[in-house]
Amino acid sequence: MDQFIYQKEDFSLDQKELILEETIFHNANGYLGVRANFEEGYPDTYKTIRGTYINGVYDFTPMNQAEKLHGLIEEKQTILNVADTQEILLYIEGQRFSMFEGTVLGSNRILDMKKGITIRNIIWESDKGHRIEIKITRMASFVFQHLFLINYEMRPLNFDGEIEIVSAHKGKVSNFFDPSDPRVAGETFEYLHLSDVKVEDDISIMTAETSKSGIQICSLVKNQLESTVGRFVQKETEVTQTFTVRAQKGKKISFYKYTVLGDSIRSADVQKEMKQYLKDVVSRPVFELYERQEVYLKDFWNNSALEVEGDEDLQKAVYYNQYQLLSSVSKDAYGNIAAKGLSGEGYEGHYFWDTEMYLQPFFVLNEREISKNLIRFRYRTLEFAKDNARELGHSQGALYPWRTIMGKECSGYFPSGTAAYHINGDVAYSVVAYYLATKDLEFMKECGAEILLETARLWMDAGNYYQGKFHINEVTGPDEYTCMVNNNYYTNLLAQYNLRWAAKMVRILSTAETGEQWCAKMHITEEECRSFEEAADNMMLPYDEETGINPQDDSFMQKKRWDLEKTPSEMFPLLMNCHPLNLYRYQICKQADTVMAHFILEDAQDIDTIRRSYDYYEKITTHDSSLSTCIFSIMAARLGMTQKAYDYFGESAKLDLFNTHKNTKDGIHTANMGGTYMAIVYGFGGFRLKEEGISFRPVMPKAWNGYSFKILFEDSKILVRVDKKQCEFILENGSGKEISVYDEKYFLVRNLAVSLKENNAE
Amino acid sequence: MDQFIYQKEDFSLDQKELILEETIFHNANGYLGVRANFEEGYPDTYKTIRGTYINGVYDFTPMNQAEKLHGLIEEKQTILNVADTQEILLYIEGQRFSMFEGTVLGSNRILDMKKGITIRNIIWESDKGHRIEIKITRMASFVFQHLFLINYEMRPLNFDGEIEIVSAHKGKVSNFFDPSDPRVAGETFEYLHLSDVKVEDDISIMTAETSKSGIQICSLVKNQLESTVGRFVQKETEVTQTFTVRAQKGKKISFYKYTVLGDSIRSADVQKEMKQYLKDVVSRPVFELYERQEVYLKDFWNNSALEVEGDEDLQKAVYYNQYQLLSSVSKDAYGNIAAKGLSGEGYEGHYFWDTEMYLQPFFVLNEREISKNLIRFRYRTLEFAKDNARELGHSQGALYPWRTIMGKECSGYFPSGTAAYHINGDVAYSVVAYYLATKDLEFMKECGAEILLETARLWMDAGNYYQGKFHINEVTGPDEYTCMVNNNYYTNLLAQYNLRWAAKMVRILSTAETGEQWCAKMHITEEECRSFEEAADNMMLPYDEETGINPQDDSFMQKKRWDLEKTPSEMFPLLMNCHPLNLYRYQICKQADTVMAHFILEDAQDIDTIRRSYDYYEKITTHDSSLSTCIFSIMAARLGMTQKAYDYFGESAKLDLFNTHKNTKDGIHTANMGGTYMAIVYGFGGFRLKEEGISFRPVMPKAWNGYSFKILFEDSKILVRVDKKQCEFILENGSGKEISVYDEKYFLVRNLAVSLKENNAE
Repeated sequence: MDQFIYQKEDFSLDQKELILEETIFHNANGYLGVRANFEEGYPDTYKTIRGTYINGVYDFTPMNQAEKLHGLIEEKQTILNVADTQEILLYIEGQRFSMFEGTVLGSNRILDMKKGITIRNIIWESDKGHRIEIKITRMASFVFQHLFLINYEMRPLNFDGEIEIVSAHKGKVSNFFDPSDPRVAGETFEYLHLSDVKVEDDISIMTAETSKSGIQICSLVKNQLESTVGRFVQKETEVTQTFTVRAQKGKKISFYKYTVLGDSIRSADVQKEMKQYLKDVVSRPVFELYERQEVYLKDFWNNSALEVEGDEDLQKAVYYNQYQLLSSVSKDAYGNIAAKGLSGEGYEGHYFWDTEMYLQPFFVLNEREISKNLIRFRYRTLEFAKDNARELGHSQGALYPWRTIMGKECSGYFPSGTAAYHINGDVAYSVVAYYLATKDLEFMKECGAEILLETARLWMDAGNYYQGKFHINEVTGPDEYTCMVNNNYYTNLLAQYNLRWAAKMVRILSTAETGEQWCAKMHITEEECRSFEEAADNMMLPYDEETGINPQDDSFMQKKRWDLEKTPSEMFPLLMNCHPLNLYRYQICKQADTVMAHFILEDAQDIDTIRRSYDYYEKITTHDSSLSTCIFSIMAARLGMTQKAYDYFGESAKLDLFNTHKNTKDGIHTANMGGTYMAIVYGFGGFRLKEEGISFRPVMPKAWNGYSFKILFEDSKILVRVDKKQCEFILENGSGKEISVYDEKYFLVRNLAVSLKENNAE
Repeated sequence: MDQFIYQKEDFSLDQKELILEETIFHNANGYLGVRANFEEGYPDTYKTIRGTYINGVYDFTPMNQAEKLHGLIEEKQTILNVADTQEILLYIEGQRFSMFEGTVLGSNRILDMKKGITIRNIIWESDKGHRIEIKITRMASFVFQHLFLINYEMRPLNFDGEIEIVSAHKGKVSNFFDPSDPRVAGETFEYLHLSDVKVEDDISIMTAETSKSGIQICSLVKNQLESTVGRFVQKETEVTQTFTVRAQKGKKISFYKYTVLGDSIRSADVQKEMKQYLKDVVSRPVFELYERQEVYLKDFWNNSALEVEGDEDLQKAVYYNQYQLLSSVSKDAYGNIAAKGLSGEGYEGHYFWDTEMYLQPFFVLNEREISKNLIRFRYRTLEFAKDNARELGHSQGALYPWRTIMGKECSGYFPSGTAAYHINGDVAYSVVAYYLATKDLEFMKECGAEILLETARLWMDAGNYYQGKFHINEVTGPDEYTCMVNNNYYTNLLAQYNLRWAAKMVRILSTAETGEQWCAKMHITEEECRSFEEAADNMMLPYDEETGINPQDDSFMQKKRWDLEKTPSEMFPLLMNCHPLNLYRYQICKQADTVMAHFILEDAQDIDTIRRSYDYYEKITTHDSSLSTCIFSIMAARLGMTQKAYDYFGESAKLDLFNTHKNTKDGIHTANMGGTYMAIVYGFGGFRLKEEGISFRPVMPKAWNGYSFKILFEDSKILVRVDKKQCEFILENGSGKEISVYDEKYFLVRNLAVSLKENNAE
């Protein structure tokens, strides 16, 4: 069984399954994403989220606040559902093909993660008994980022007759709206207004303008049915092209539909550029398009595949997650990674801290160019972050938005949005991680250092000294079940790291060539550097003597503990059933917060404090956030609880494929997918990336026979392979490196094997 | 000069002045309120808030939350603008009378607070030179609560000719909407739908239904022009009656327009009852209506007038404020006192803690029946308060809504709304104050004790013990520039008082007749009583060793101090120019918070702590709330800073008449009006009402020659008169009472004089 293939046989036509599969089998390449809707449609009663999205393309939409306090966000950005080019209708001897009419004699659905395509195979019989085999292949090309390609292969099984193919290009679209959901406004809103609809050179071309953001989106469709000429019908918002062919029993007919999407953020003359683009891809032999997709993915898997031996389901889930990371991430700095990737409209396509803390670890260690673009995205939006800081009363520095597409804050409820100042620390952390993995000073000068500096400046203004300690008040940590607290451990620890690294980077750069110039441009002085270091050295980090743990914030310990055992299961997720004030009053966590801080910056505390904290928080954490279990998995592994780590890992890995959070229909959970990766590499592998170098502390879950992963550190590619007995390190290329395994130092020249420890925790 | 008369000569026709006077000269009686709009209207370009309101009559209206967290309020109540019966058009020999056409030869506007009427006098000349004197008298009857009466006296000065009077009754009304205000939704909404419009027995009758709250409102108009018969014209939503008379030079014509308003909250068959009501009032000689108004007010002033000698402006402002208290307060338990009384739509007609902490002090000591009804209102809505507590996750007790009309919470932004749990303590405090002033155990059994009990139960669930202390976390105190804090001093102190008094009242009642029965009904046990006392005894009350003050909450001292001196004046009020997170991060106060706690429960701290706290908070308080300066005035007086007390008092007293907060157009500030009263009685008079009895500590502002006030304590009416030398106490009726003056005990039999101390502070 090929674990790169995810397949469903005789798939269900149950509406709930289908809407879920729209997400699971969607096609995306980081630029565009198309949900896996049936080309031929569904019965009218079926709920479907029919969508095509472009990374970074947005419109503004009003967000009314119940009370108009100064500075509250009243306009947000939203991802757009752009032109619908999925529709293809087949008429078999006059009867329209549908999964819900005639007879489906067999069907399956396939995601092939090596070929980068999805396939739908159907054997269908019409009411009159005409039997036909249909194979629908879809691809969002990783190589040709603007291209989405559909191929229909049709083979009459028991008849000669007429097949009509009607391929549509629809410009009238709107975002998903569920009239049964009271949380959504009373009507759909059309963000896109078609400004140009035409057919030119057998290509249908539509140009649409967003209602407020001033973005042009161009969609082009080219249909090809061997040498047949199709008839165009052009309406106000729709172009169809109809092909009629005489089909012969047993003989395949192959139909191609090329969609090219472009936007004016990336193209100066989008229509012209996309026309040229389409002509270029159409001019290539189609096998080349497929082949280059396969080559691209071969490189990808070769570069970064996580292997798990001994658990087929898990291996598949791990591949799936990794594949979706690649599908979701923008390959340029105009986009980023939305919480739901390009698979749906959940969270309105916003980018969160997920990028830096859950997704960058994968890209930093495997796909450096992507990693750089994610940082460039933050750099590109730095001015908005500065404006945001001013709006919040800070006289200096930049505060990144909690959720955004184009750089402006979109939080509707600021206590668990804008107040999450840790986003600044998260962004800085990812810059440092990139630096630690690459030592790429050029990139630091290009943008990384400035990000470090402006985020550090924000902390200096947001915090203040009190009784000799540097306090950061009124912020919200990762755990949104407690908001606007003082000295959130996670936030302060990251702020400390951010301040230290800002100073350190300034010192590194100021000694480098052109460094002085850079410092002058940044108006950075030695005094400011020292003020960063002083604040970092005196950072308030809550510690509770009685329990010996790090409290989540100053006042966490004085609150009542929520009794999770007595909470009925239908109360979860608690946020759906409890007033925020109720949650805020208790010791109850939505997700890893201090535990996460102990993972990412483990050296701030001794291992006993970390262990006690883990034990303490585990009892009051609901994991109502999909960002939680992977962190608990990592820390369980770190603390020698391998079986527990394995259980948490399973929850994380299977989240989307098994729809365990029951909302995968709205899109995949990209952060959790990154978390799955982290749980293997940082959790079981015990990998850490620090200033001192890289280190490992591998453990092996009982259920597995082995696992492996790869790390690109500086110029060196290292394959790490763990089995029941030992851990092997193989230098695939690059120079020899010092590595630490179970706190022992080794110099890796070619390969190295270290015996596995039963218990890796001190 | 009669200080019960507030008069404007040749009043301005500037639009901004007029809209302000709509508030200042409004007519209200606690049941209904009519803004002082010109009967004949304004030019189209003028902004006017034309309104008639009924206390306690509301509709529901949606309030969308930007993010839909569980339990957030999505529907609020709003006061309604009901039928418009103000319009009276005059045609003088064919020309329509208007202040903006023809020539106004003279005019004034009068509020007569002894007669309980407003008057508009105009001498007007038409374009053709017809000169006429018009006197318009309006009255909202205190005696006949459903009646609003307009009288026109017209005297042709230089002509004989035709006068036409067109009196309208308009059913198509909507709440005020300002298209230039971006904070208001895009269109007006008609809350009222007319279900019946008719003319019967020369009375026009309209019945309207609210859109959602299921309330019927009935308005009836009866016009009388001596023996002239008017012609009715009935349209879908409007009835007019036109009278034509031959006027003779020098001879007065008198026209009366009776409006009767009723509602189905108070009347089972509102139309029938109001028809009868109107017939009754019309059948009385009109002078009786005016006379009874005057008698009612004579009693009122006699009972409670605050006298200030030596400052005419202030005296007038003091009378004005007192008059508005009477005009604003509901005389039954179906209404309460809206933040803006019945003078406008500001704060949507909601009732706040203002009632208990700023308005009840006046009523408790002067108008006992009104005071009882205000408590009954809270009792009537106790079930909603229990529901509210459940919604917020509390397993027991009641939590009163921060803002409401019918009992359900209406806060749009819960951190400075719902989270203000001190409302519970405020309600309890007012119950105790009523009890201390009356010793009325019957009323405690009727409703007071149950309120004390259910509010106390809430604290037990909201708080928790930590390290031996009872903590109350995640609440907002009076100062909304810091939200959702732990152990707000004001809140905890009131909670302590609430808990103690709940236990005490249970013990008192359980020894009284039928007491056992009551305890059984309330399911109150000795154990629960003890738990109240234990929590009260161990209540966490923040104290800072370093400064020797009571910090506003646990973490107040660790925040940065806001530099008020460096803040440009255009930044105030800060809430209009600063993001909440910005304010929350600083030591900066919108209003008295801890200082207020030190006023209402002064025995919790020694006077030095109180003084240090006062000094500390004064420097960081903006008084951006109208509830602040009166409290600072009281505490300045208490601490011997009489001049400062006087200055704060002036700010408080003149707020509306001098429009110092620049928003009196939206309505008067009732709480501040109560605060003015408190500043004299509690501030300069140093009056306190405690379990131990009543006490005084009078001081005399330099600018005054004297002041006096009255107190109804138990069965005794005491007149307190202070001059430059002494303070006189006169027992007007009732039994002798022990009183304390400057901490000395006296027994007041008939009268008593005590020399004034230069400095009353220890």
